[in-house]
Amino acid sequence: MTERDISSFSRLVGLTELNQAYADSLDSGDLAAWPDFFTTDGVYKAQGRENFDRGLPLAAMLCDGRCMLDDRVTVISQIMVYAPRSLRHVVSAPRILAIDGSLIHARTSFSVFHTLPHEPTALLSVGRYEDEVLTDPTGEMKFRSRVAVYDSLLIPNSLVYPL
Amino acid sequence: MTERDISSFSRLVGLTELNQAYADSLDSGDLAAWPDFFTTDGVYKAQGRENFDRGLPLAAMLCDGRCMLDDRVTVISQIMVYAPRSLRHVVSAPRILAIDGSLIHARTSFSVFHTLPHEPTALLSVGRYEDEVLTDPTGEMKFRSRVAVYDSLLIPNSLVYPL
Amino acid sequence: MTERDISSFSRLVGLTELNQAYADSLDSGDLAAWPDFFTTDGVYKAQGRENFDRGLPLAAMLCDGRCMLDDRVTVISQIMVYAPRSLRHVVSAPRILAIDGSLIHARTSFSVFHTLPHEPTALLSVGRYEDEVLTDPTGEMKFRSRVAVYDSLLIPNSLVYPL
Repeated sequence: MTERDISSFSRLVGLTELNQAYADSLDSGDLAAWPDFFTTDGVYKAQGRENFDRGLPLAAMLCDGRCMLDDRVTVISQIMVYAPRSLRHVVSAPRILAIDGSLIHARTSFSVFHTLPHEPTALLSVGRYEDEVLTDPTGEMKFRSRVAVYDSLLIPNSLVYPL
Repeated sequence: MTERDISSFSRLVGLTELNQAYADSLDSGDLAAWPDFFTTDGVYKAQGRENFDRGLPLAAMLCDGRCMLDDRVTVISQIMVYAPRSLRHVVSAPRILAIDGSLIHARTSFSVFHTLPHEPTALLSVGRYEDEVLTDPTGEMKFRSRVAVYDSLLIPNSLVYPL
Repeated sequence: MTERDISSFSRLVGLTELNQAYADSLDSGDLAAWPDFFTTDGVYKAQGRENFDRGLPLAAMLCDGRCMLDDRVTVISQIMVYAPRSLRHVVSAPRILAIDGSLIHARTSFSVFHTLPHEPTALLSVGRYEDEVLTDPTGEMKFRSRVAVYDSLLIPNSLVYPL
């Protein structure tokens, strides 16, 4: 096995673990852990496909930096009023698009289902994550940027949690 | 590549293969092979999220040990009356939560779709597997425990096959 | 790590990358790239489960060789009339069924969602890919045969793009 293979495996495994930990955190309702998946200057966006593909700025959710990420958690946990629900992410394997020094550009398809009490599970949204991932010196991966690009502008019941 | 990396890869690959073989067996209608994915004292449960998370015992399906697993296969294959249907599992990559000697604790998100004859495919259930996996001396992995924790208490058409 | 482990990892990683690149190409609307995932004599079929499992020939889509694959792209891009839509594939990890020299037989479960403008995303189809994959001397994997076996004969809105 070449050095190239080893790095390639490590990256794929690392990204997979990051994706599953991220999804598990949201699906378990552990929203407080969500900002930790980002670097200090990390950006999170949830944006419709048409806007993203045309480079337009409109986004359903935009958090630029750790403070805004923490802020969003507070808003969802303490201020917003909505029916309780749980999420379930089922994501594909990540596709690595480019490697730029320690920065990995990756794309991952997602399906997100949600369940409200006493209701059957329904499809909330499908789309792709467009990610920029940094590996810190300890080997831990974090999102410098994660854009959840959803395919349909129509999202049932509106977006409460990040995708 | 360190020894740690190698073990980590092997575990992830092993769990992934186990998950896909398990799903493929159910999706192919090969129910007779299902008990073989468990150890002799293996436990399978299908349980709603609310009950699992509160540690409550109520479960839609519970098989404690190989005999009950075999029994369940007989019940489904020869006794129960239901419209024929096929399943389709689409599962995420496994997330390893803890390693305790030769026992791996893992969690994997699943979506399960079902198709009845002359009907379009519909979503049956989404949730997560909470697994305890043992590797025997030959390197084969088996479930000591698999709990399929489904997010919605409402399951269309009731549960016939294991999830 | 044994040589066997290394080959096994490489195959799984290679198939995963192939599956994600294939799905991403269709989901991005880059249909022109689709024939490139096949060998010169590659075969693509989209076929209902009942027909596939009984070895019957009827298929919703059949392209035998590169010329027919290219042809299909032309038909979809320039001749067919249909409402615009986007696809989203969420696929499981591949399951390797057999290795026959340089030919890999693999099976992968898929869910495909589609989104029409101003409509919510809907489930299009679920099923499994039955694949024969060849690795060329440069290490690139291509489909000698990919059969998308869908579970329901009823596909909403009919099939426009390959699955």
